[in-house]
Amino acid sequence: MSSNLKFGAGIWHFATYVDRYATDGYGPKRSLLEMIDLAGQVDDLSVVDINYPFPGGNVSVAEVKAALTKNNLSVIGITPEIYTRQFSKGAFTNPDPAVRKLAEDLINEAADMVRELGAEYVKLWPGQDGWDYPFQVDHHELWHLSMAGLTNVAKQNPDLKFVVEYKPREPRNHMSYDSMTRTLLALEKINLPNIGVLLDFGHALYGGESPADSAQLAIDYGRLFGMDVNDNLRSWDDDMIAGSVHPIELMEFFYVLRKNNWHGVWQLDQFPFREDCVAAANSAISFLKHIDSALDRMDWDGLKEAQKQQDAVAAINIAREALFGLL
Amino acid sequence: MSSNLKFGAGIWHFATYVDRYATDGYGPKRSLLEMIDLAGQVDDLSVVDINYPFPGGNVSVAEVKAALTKNNLSVIGITPEIYTRQFSKGAFTNPDPAVRKLAEDLINEAADMVRELGAEYVKLWPGQDGWDYPFQVDHHELWHLSMAGLTNVAKQNPDLKFVVEYKPREPRNHMSYDSMTRTLLALEKINLPNIGVLLDFGHALYGGESPADSAQLAIDYGRLFGMDVNDNLRSWDDDMIAGSVHPIELMEFFYVLRKNNWHGVWQLDQFPFREDCVAAANSAISFLKHIDSALDRMDWDGLKEAQKQQDAVAAINIAREALFGLL
Amino acid sequence: MSSNLKFGAGIWHFATYVDRYATDGYGPKRSLLEMIDLAGQVDDLSVVDINYPFPGGNVSVAEVKAALTKNNLSVIGITPEIYTRQFSKGAFTNPDPAVRKLAEDLINEAADMVRELGAEYVKLWPGQDGWDYPFQVDHHELWHLSMAGLTNVAKQNPDLKFVVEYKPREPRNHMSYDSMTRTLLALEKINLPNIGVLLDFGHALYGGESPADSAQLAIDYGRLFGMDVNDNLRSWDDDMIAGSVHPIELMEFFYVLRKNNWHGVWQLDQFPFREDCVAAANSAISFLKHIDSALDRMDWDGLKEAQKQQDAVAAINIAREALFGLL
Amino acid sequence: MSSNLKFGAGIWHFATYVDRYATDGYGPKRSLLEMIDLAGQVDDLSVVDINYPFPGGNVSVAEVKAALTKNNLSVIGITPEIYTRQFSKGAFTNPDPAVRKLAEDLINEAADMVRELGAEYVKLWPGQDGWDYPFQVDHHELWHLSMAGLTNVAKQNPDLKFVVEYKPREPRNHMSYDSMTRTLLALEKINLPNIGVLLDFGHALYGGESPADSAQLAIDYGRLFGMDVNDNLRSWDDDMIAGSVHPIELMEFFYVLRKNNWHGVWQLDQFPFREDCVAAANSAISFLKHIDSALDRMDWDGLKEAQKQQDAVAAINIAREALFGLL
Repeated sequence: MSSNLKFGAGIWHFATYVDRYATDGYGPKRSLLEMIDLAGQVDDLSVVDINYPFPGGNVSVAEVKAALTKNNLSVIGITPEIYTRQFSKGAFTNPDPAVRKLAEDLINEAADMVRELGAEYVKLWPGQDGWDYPFQVDHHELWHLSMAGLTNVAKQNPDLKFVVEYKPREPRNHMSYDSMTRTLLALEKINLPNIGVLLDFGHALYGGESPADSAQLAIDYGRLFGMDVNDNLRSWDDDMIAGSVHPIELMEFFYVLRKNNWHGVWQLDQFPFREDCVAAANSAISFLKHIDSALDRMDWDGLKEAQKQQDAVAAINIAREALFGLL
Repeated sequence: MSSNLKFGAGIWHFATYVDRYATDGYGPKRSLLEMIDLAGQVDDLSVVDINYPFPGGNVSVAEVKAALTKNNLSVIGITPEIYTRQFSKGAFTNPDPAVRKLAEDLINEAADMVRELGAEYVKLWPGQDGWDYPFQVDHHELWHLSMAGLTNVAKQNPDLKFVVEYKPREPRNHMSYDSMTRTLLALEKINLPNIGVLLDFGHALYGGESPADSAQLAIDYGRLFGMDVNDNLRSWDDDMIAGSVHPIELMEFFYVLRKNNWHGVWQLDQFPFREDCVAAANSAISFLKHIDSALDRMDWDGLKEAQKQQDAVAAINIAREALFGLL
Repeated sequence: MSSNLKFGAGIWHFATYVDRYATDGYGPKRSLLEMIDLAGQVDDLSVVDINYPFPGGNVSVAEVKAALTKNNLSVIGITPEIYTRQFSKGAFTNPDPAVRKLAEDLINEAADMVRELGAEYVKLWPGQDGWDYPFQVDHHELWHLSMAGLTNVAKQNPDLKFVVEYKPREPRNHMSYDSMTRTLLALEKINLPNIGVLLDFGHALYGGESPADSAQLAIDYGRLFGMDVNDNLRSWDDDMIAGSVHPIELMEFFYVLRKNNWHGVWQLDQFPFREDCVAAANSAISFLKHIDSALDRMDWDGLKEAQKQQDAVAAINIAREALFGLL
Repeated sequence: MSSNLKFGAGIWHFATYVDRYATDGYGPKRSLLEMIDLAGQVDDLSVVDINYPFPGGNVSVAEVKAALTKNNLSVIGITPEIYTRQFSKGAFTNPDPAVRKLAEDLINEAADMVRELGAEYVKLWPGQDGWDYPFQVDHHELWHLSMAGLTNVAKQNPDLKFVVEYKPREPRNHMSYDSMTRTLLALEKINLPNIGVLLDFGHALYGGESPADSAQLAIDYGRLFGMDVNDNLRSWDDDMIAGSVHPIELMEFFYVLRKNNWHGVWQLDQFPFREDCVAAANSAISFLKHIDSALDRMDWDGLKEAQKQQDAVAAINIAREALFGLL
């Protein structure tokens, strides 16, 4: 059980942000090419996930490719922006069928970009699909629209993989794909081989899941197609630097991945609103490497025995020893 | 879409309680017969759910039957106590196979009591099955034990119905059957006709679900075998009087039930630690009747149209008009 | 104890919004004059709180005055935007003294605008003052900067009132002025007569306070200078329509205000991201009037007696009777 | 800034527990003498906090003293049990003046026991003082009773120190002394030198505070009389092993204590429901020592500079380096 790590990041890690208060943004807008150059400055980054349409203004595919090559980066996924103004009342679940069609078209364009850039998957994060108020939606209808939209694009692109990134809420007060188990229920019902889950550590955490447990479950269903990490204070998707708050649960998450011989990219989904984005990425990756080496050091047999007894004290002592270098 | 309500309660509504601080209890212990007599004092209670072994000390089945008859009550479910000391490290998922067998035996005894008392189902609430700490359990193993235990007892009693009551946490920091969607995933995998879900409104609410949405989903899977209501502050299973905090979401929950022609008992799962238990039950039932009449009054066509547009303001106005008598 | 209601709203209720996902906004930008015209369409709105610098592009004071007059509106408060890009690392607590001076200057300009428009107060919401990460700040220093900044502007404008609007978090992961009690601690220490609290119902609620209790406390300290209402799901500042989730606690809040003869404006602080803003305001105000009439109907003597006994069931029954028209 | 650690624990760490489900307890009852013997088995425990009346059945003061001596333990505090059945509707705030007098008497007896055992303080945790439901209490009255009760006992025992341990909730849905800032508001109003705060790390954490910030504030008011540590999942008082979930915030907490030259006992307030209590205490203390040595290793000047800039990445990197031994 050795490791051979490859690190990635959503390209938005290197953007600047707006929110409802700092409407003029936390910094001047950046073009995609600038973001890629920043990504290239991170010590150990190999792949990026890129929004589509390309963020930060017009840029050609050729320019993007050149920037990627220059920075030694390749593309793992394309994320169609199915959560901007036109989709503010939903993409798959928009009450207007014409907008649902727009979402389908945009996803298909993103699929083409996956092919064009040699990426692995289309990432779907339907953040505007859901509801805000009691009584607002017909829950039966909404959920069926959620599944139908996903089914359509997956069937239209059988040569590609799609990953669904669930999240409890934000920007909607409640997202349709809100949890690992709900997403798996959908995938079981849809029953197509080319849809999987992208597990965001922070989304699982603030949704009250144990990310390690969620990873195991997705693996057991053969659906863990991707993952990313960050951290938060358990009540919101704070997208903080990985390991800055929950290092032990982060280690347990990677423990489950290694134990199951899951060999995907370790990606970052962080939003450094007020931080230097390169420094924030380096800080996270350096800690992820520490976790990887802690897993090398850890007493796996001892842990197995402790878990067999469900002995929390023994288990936590073993994990701590490896993670903190305790005697 | 008319209604013909039947009200029920867990018999523990009429018990006294202990917790980790008031270890001497919030009142003197009561026998099951005393609890039944208190239940009989509630204005409109028809059925009760009874723990097994019978709580509050020894009492014969004949005495229980007599007390029920005297109070005009029948039994809807039997809840085996698979969460007391011997099961404090789990029932289905206990690390000790001998304890898992004890749980199976106790559930089978409860099944016999269901037959004996003419109840509808065995209710399973495996509150000690789960984990407390990172690294404590092998999540793959734990989940399979959770499903295996349930499968066994359902197969051994094909003539009976079993209902699983999920809950996010307490007493375990994380329960295995933690949500509607996880429970449905298990039931789909187990694939037996005699296991369903008992949806506790408060458990759904503090787990971040919309209880209305969870009800719809369980109905769509043909698995909503029972329900109970109460209220809480969205961060814990406070088991407060139904409607005392979230009357609008409670109304939406019953709206979904009525819309789907679901005709089960409206049960209470409240813990009146410091309150008069009969008064607390009457307060809840009186409010449930108000909700029922609000659903009679509500503009169903208008709501349908609002939901078609996902128009939150129109929808909430229609619900409010019916619930509060607003013009 | 009669009532004579006056309703108000933050002018941002009539803006369009951006967030970190819908970076192109939930609708086309609106000028302040457009917002005022929308506010004028609400059935019973008398006053507004206006951001400074004026939002939505350049407009003269004369134009603003004319628009207000045309729409029969006056100004209750001016909210200097001490949370935009230049203040993204804090206003009072910015690590750079030059930025702290900018904040002071902006607040003083806002104070002039209060005088110019005949408003009641400068509203201070230092949303970027706080921290995101463990170890990020010197807590002693940060809190003293928080108090010093407030003290300075209040001393420089002794003829005006200042209100501090606390909030647990957002956009910072933790705001310095995070709660009613912390804000009161500061005001007691600062000991100036012209600083009070603006109590936002939703901020109190999702901060784990009882808004009714917080109102009572602020009144007991002579510091409840203003308030606004909205609703949320108790884990975030959702700024939903008032009463759409927590009508009973909203009623208790107004009960405490009436009981203490507090006669300020009932203001809205809602963010209708995807809703018609006029309809959302009308929906809220119509419900606030219902609450007001429920307080007329309520059995005050009965409630007083129930509270004397801390009898939750009797108290909740009395409140429900008035609010829902239960018999 | 060196350290010279002394460890302590609430004696209840070595008890067995009941809750509302495992009403027969998580293990057989233990006498106080047995608990003291278990405490004596922990590697580095010097002091204990003991409930009064003595838990687990009758035992004489002489026997307690002998057991303490045998186990090399002394007593830091006495915790009167003002939260058992007779106080289930409150101690200081009970609606019945006779029960309030009982609470006062019990606290005075506990004060005598402090003198008798040479302890440092009476610890007051009024866990039943508060409310459960909207409208249940007169908030003005409740808060004044909370302060009056505390004032009385502190005035009656001017030779002794009293510490108040605040907590957001449990067993009440809302406790009167719910936060650091509310407790400090009370202490400022009461204005007696012999009342301070006992800061429980976990209570601060799940109340949405930063424990480090709360410690700094209490120190700045001269009121940090004691502290204890544990861990939780940020939504409840789980009383887990210290550092098992939030090691970084735990380190920041001790950083603030050391920085301010605060030299009290490092106490544990853990509830090992299903764990070996001696192993749980050893696990925590071993980690606390690791934190202490991490503080020795940490780059204090670098951190000071990072905090001056509020540079989160630099600060978190410095803390991590010391805590995890990262390069």
